[in-house]
Amino acid sequence: MTNEYIVLIKNRKKKNKMEEYLEFAKEIAKEAKKIMKKYFNTKLSNGATYKGDKTIVTIADKEINSYLIEKVKEKYPNHSVDGEEEVFGKSDYVWVCDPIDGTAMFARNIPTATFSLALVVNGEPIIGVINDVFTDNLYTGVKGKGAYKNDEKIKVNDYLLEDMRSVGHYDMWPEAPYKIYDVIKELGKKEYFVSIGSVIRACVCVAAGEFNLVIFPGTVHKNCDIAAVKIIVEEAGGKVTDIFGNNQRYDESINGAVVSNGIIHEEVIETIKKFLDKK
Amino acid sequence: MTNEYIVLIKNRKKKNKMEEYLEFAKEIAKEAKKIMKKYFNTKLSNGATYKGDKTIVTIADKEINSYLIEKVKEKYPNHSVDGEEEVFGKSDYVWVCDPIDGTAMFARNIPTATFSLALVVNGEPIIGVINDVFTDNLYTGVKGKGAYKNDEKIKVNDYLLEDMRSVGHYDMWPEAPYKIYDVIKELGKKEYFVSIGSVIRACVCVAAGEFNLVIFPGTVHKNCDIAAVKIIVEEAGGKVTDIFGNNQRYDESINGAVVSNGIIHEEVIETIKKFLDKK
Repeated sequence: MTNEYIVLIKNRKKKNKMEEYLEFAKEIAKEAKKIMKKYFNTKLSNGATYKGDKTIVTIADKEINSYLIEKVKEKYPNHSVDGEEEVFGKSDYVWVCDPIDGTAMFARNIPTATFSLALVVNGEPIIGVINDVFTDNLYTGVKGKGAYKNDEKIKVNDYLLEDMRSVGHYDMWPEAPYKIYDVIKELGKKEYFVSIGSVIRACVCVAAGEFNLVIFPGTVHKNCDIAAVKIIVEEAGGKVTDIFGNNQRYDESINGAVVSNGIIHEEVIETIKKFLDKK
Repeated sequence: MTNEYIVLIKNRKKKNKMEEYLEFAKEIAKEAKKIMKKYFNTKLSNGATYKGDKTIVTIADKEINSYLIEKVKEKYPNHSVDGEEEVFGKSDYVWVCDPIDGTAMFARNIPTATFSLALVVNGEPIIGVINDVFTDNLYTGVKGKGAYKNDEKIKVNDYLLEDMRSVGHYDMWPEAPYKIYDVIKELGKKEYFVSIGSVIRACVCVAAGEFNLVIFPGTVHKNCDIAAVKIIVEEAGGKVTDIFGNNQRYDESINGAVVSNGIIHEEVIETIKKFLDKK
């Protein structure tokens, strides 16, 4: 065999493998939707319990996480799982999952919670799937292959902060590692900000050109909020960094995130640096 | 006829009239839902236009407002309509309507937008109907008769700001009459705040015990955001005032609003007064 032929075969195998991973992730996302729908807007979703960090864990959350681990064990026993509720194994191939992002909203019957799953290889997300189960929109991203909302290719918008169509999102809570109120106060002179209770739901809005910005102050010991977002938003033409504009790994704790259409990224980072001390 | 008998007959008539108004409002709310569902998550909802104050008016918004005016003209020709998009007549009986609160979210496929309608008599809401069309929950309030989510009686929660279960909501945008970032920064030391893009959707969460607080900095020339909220939240045991804790009329421009479970109202008002100059 010639070297060229070997490369061709290797690339074809790699492509098939990527398609297989994506299909696997989509199947998990569909099952997650069923579980979320089963519990949403019922007495059970209100029967939420509280974790130490004050976020709410619902029964649905745990059920999805367990399902993912079971399926990864079956299909990719050498891979590991880093779920928000439960982890499994140790590998360079990590399935990073937030079963329900926005559980506080989920438990209060507000339909903005989302399911998120990424395959992270050596710290870099290569497959991302986010299921916005309440509007029947499945967002996907594959390294080098673009981002999709169902079958439709999506891309970020090109709105500056002062564009009247601009909407930004941020998260903030009493125990957040970074206090970003002053940043939002400053950027809020130009742009309309919301905080819809799920950072992941907001980030797919960036990918689809509906929002132009998300600022996430991070959660201790969590990477699952942004792993799938990283690949989907960047494949849609946007930019995803840590809160100070640096690249970071997505198989370990992250240092917050700025998720934008790319155009406004530098201006946002500069404003953040003005108000926050760099760790 | 004795005087007692006359009073009895009058009361019965009044009761029947209140029930009739409520049924009328519910019918309008149901039609509004059909219209909202028809346009949501379609290309049309994205074909939003922009008003001078930078909020988005969708086709659905205008269609609901026109429908309401047509129905009021038919059934209560002596009443007037104060809709966010269109007004009709001048009367002590005013149907105050926000056809779609949260149009910016509606246009971006985020299912938090709500329909709101109140009958305001001499400045005071006596009937309120809010349709959260995306979760099939219809909230109603009738003066002296309690508040309901569909057929279930609802009441506010009793969470203090520092309660770990507490969620508050606020609205903020570059042109808001009051800048409340510092207020939220201060209260945010205790409580988790969101801003889900529809003040009315957030306020029914207060009525249903899911949130304990909403702070609304007001919109110039608008009362429709809070009229139905006023009667529903107070019938659920909560408190609704202007942004400085005063009562106000709901058939003319309002001076912002604080909507709470009642228990925390005074503490919130004191914090607001610390940071905002009383007009």
